[in-house]
Amino acid sequence: MLPLNPALAATFRPPVMEARRWLEGLTFPPERPLINLSQAAPVEPPPEALRRAMAEAALQRPDAHLYGPVLGRPDLREAVARDWSRAYAGTIRADEVAITQGCNQAFCAAIQTLARAGDEVILPTPWYFNHKMWLDMQGIRAVPLRCGPGMLPDAAEAARLVSDRSRAIVLVSPNNPSGAEYPAELLRGFFDLARSRGLALVLDETYRDFDAREGAPHDLFADPDWGDTLIHLYSFSKAYRLTGHRVGALIANPARMAEVEKFLDTVAICAGQLGQIGAAWGMANLRDWLAGERAEILARRRAMAQGMAALPGWRVKGCGAYFAWVEHPFAMPAPELAQRLLRQAGVLLLPGSMFMPADDPEAARHLRIAFANADRDGIAALMRRLEAFRP
Amino acid sequence: MLPLNPALAATFRPPVMEARRWLEGLTFPPERPLINLSQAAPVEPPPEALRRAMAEAALQRPDAHLYGPVLGRPDLREAVARDWSRAYAGTIRADEVAITQGCNQAFCAAIQTLARAGDEVILPTPWYFNHKMWLDMQGIRAVPLRCGPGMLPDAAEAARLVSDRSRAIVLVSPNNPSGAEYPAELLRGFFDLARSRGLALVLDETYRDFDAREGAPHDLFADPDWGDTLIHLYSFSKAYRLTGHRVGALIANPARMAEVEKFLDTVAICAGQLGQIGAAWGMANLRDWLAGERAEILARRRAMAQGMAALPGWRVKGCGAYFAWVEHPFAMPAPELAQRLLRQAGVLLLPGSMFMPADDPEAARHLRIAFANADRDGIAALMRRLEAFRP
Repeated sequence: MLPLNPALAATFRPPVMEARRWLEGLTFPPERPLINLSQAAPVEPPPEALRRAMAEAALQRPDAHLYGPVLGRPDLREAVARDWSRAYAGTIRADEVAITQGCNQAFCAAIQTLARAGDEVILPTPWYFNHKMWLDMQGIRAVPLRCGPGMLPDAAEAARLVSDRSRAIVLVSPNNPSGAEYPAELLRGFFDLARSRGLALVLDETYRDFDAREGAPHDLFADPDWGDTLIHLYSFSKAYRLTGHRVGALIANPARMAEVEKFLDTVAICAGQLGQIGAAWGMANLRDWLAGERAEILARRRAMAQGMAALPGWRVKGCGAYFAWVEHPFAMPAPELAQRLLRQAGVLLLPGSMFMPADDPEAARHLRIAFANADRDGIAALMRRLEAFRP
Repeated sequence: MLPLNPALAATFRPPVMEARRWLEGLTFPPERPLINLSQAAPVEPPPEALRRAMAEAALQRPDAHLYGPVLGRPDLREAVARDWSRAYAGTIRADEVAITQGCNQAFCAAIQTLARAGDEVILPTPWYFNHKMWLDMQGIRAVPLRCGPGMLPDAAEAARLVSDRSRAIVLVSPNNPSGAEYPAELLRGFFDLARSRGLALVLDETYRDFDAREGAPHDLFADPDWGDTLIHLYSFSKAYRLTGHRVGALIANPARMAEVEKFLDTVAICAGQLGQIGAAWGMANLRDWLAGERAEILARRRAMAQGMAALPGWRVKGCGAYFAWVEHPFAMPAPELAQRLLRQAGVLLLPGSMFMPADDPEAARHLRIAFANADRDGIAALMRRLEAFRP
């Protein structure tokens, strides 16, 4: 038999694929179709104008099919640098931007430059499962930092978890899975902690386009020395519905970029060119459309919050961007509840156990609702089913 | 300052990007344009019919833009299983095929499932640099196995390098950088060695479509228990000119696939959908076209071999698929020679030092010529410049 890397063997299986497997063999009656709120993924394709731009590039531009630079197409890197500099009132240069095959890969790249087996990374719980998986398979210890009220992590508590093996603190805002939008002062507190202890602050802002707040969500890029501490991650998947093209971004200082380039060259060579062309086109042409998308997501968020508030026994712990993190009122643990919700109510949600250590009692009591795919009718239907559900 | 993973810091920079940097600030006169034979990459886009198929998918198929299964689109996995089963006279099922974001990523996935920091992998020299880079950044020791006559590695010699930390032997055939096509008996010898010592044989056949031999290059898949030993890697980039879309494949047993899925989910989520659609379309429709491409590459290979044979002092050590591995007649080391060839002769080749340990005396005496991009006129021009060159 082939050798098996014990670190990979000990890594859990992809939760979203696991949930897809739950669906195998199940059928749902037409009067009660499946409500699948397991994944943060648009179910509609990009707007037609973007699809047309990509189709034209596929047909007419040779460079849409050929290798590009490891760190990304220059025009897309420049567009990100320009837009981000304006949005965050800071200075970000094009050579501080790398384009990756999706934001998961941006995270992997960031961590690879920072830490190796035996090192530690502080990860608030509930975590984004692919972050935990990468740390596990690399033999890096994820040090859990339990979120407090409002699903917010506390920098003072994080400070107590720093050891001589610590290399980074990872934050996701708006958060997956909790939806929490971290206040600017909270992010500043973590930034200061990271800087004072010689750690990196890896800040994943995949859902920034759907933040309910107006203006910049933090002022970290306004610090001329942000690059000594901050690594920022972003995804084009949600804003422009490009999930199937795998385009993300990583922003870091130029010295770090040379290390990121080694990783990306080896694991990717480059991000897909057509996806990058689409992302650049979207940034240039879909600003108004994206504002409308955001308004719709925010409306769904309100519908979620209102609906859940009226639901006896359920408690919303966090709600924002694509996600709600909810406490259920039942005696059974969340994994079993998720199975029953699927079979009895035709609702697919991921259990809290997929987002935190199995021995954390919070894992059994919570569910993630990736509500962004449900329109307001769908959210109303979800509420009716949850209200009628008896396990 | 941010922490730095010493394993990544110790990894060399991407050679192809390094070579691109050599070009910065240089100009080449119109009567003697640059001959860039540094990278194995088509310079033409895919045939128009394939571009049209991809453009139509971009415009009309929503699933071309949305997440797909981690292990790849079912139709492409099935097409690979069917074609490979026939080509290798073996039995390969669709659930033994994973689609990756390019073949580099297939290699990373294979190694991640097999080995971790402190383990060893036997790697013939000269090696494919991205293989060495991945092992380095993962803290896995690459144990060099010097190729002998015909640029062939010797299984008996490899047997002497096996230790209790060994996890895999990596072979590339046809080889990058040497072009050597490994005989079926040689591959069988390594397969038997790997099996007897409980190692994996990772066999990268990226260039299989350009093998000069007719029929199956080996009979390993005909062994009903191939999955206990063999992991096969492939790239759609060269055959269908899809380098910019990043589509590769990995074939392994189903238990291994569950581990591969964890890695791909985390580092990729999925390969680009449009590239996968293009690859499947190419497999279904471009068989004759690909046969013509192969004939053209084989003609270039003959032109290379003939041209080099007439060149005083130069020796061809290996020549096949996209590459020739040549010994130069000059006293200076290959890295310096590569720079002079670029500046004085307008020829960009990669030095042997990019493909083997720096302290290996072979590194200084060899160059890789990625001749596939040069047509026969280009190869003739290369020969004239090499003949006239005086360092």
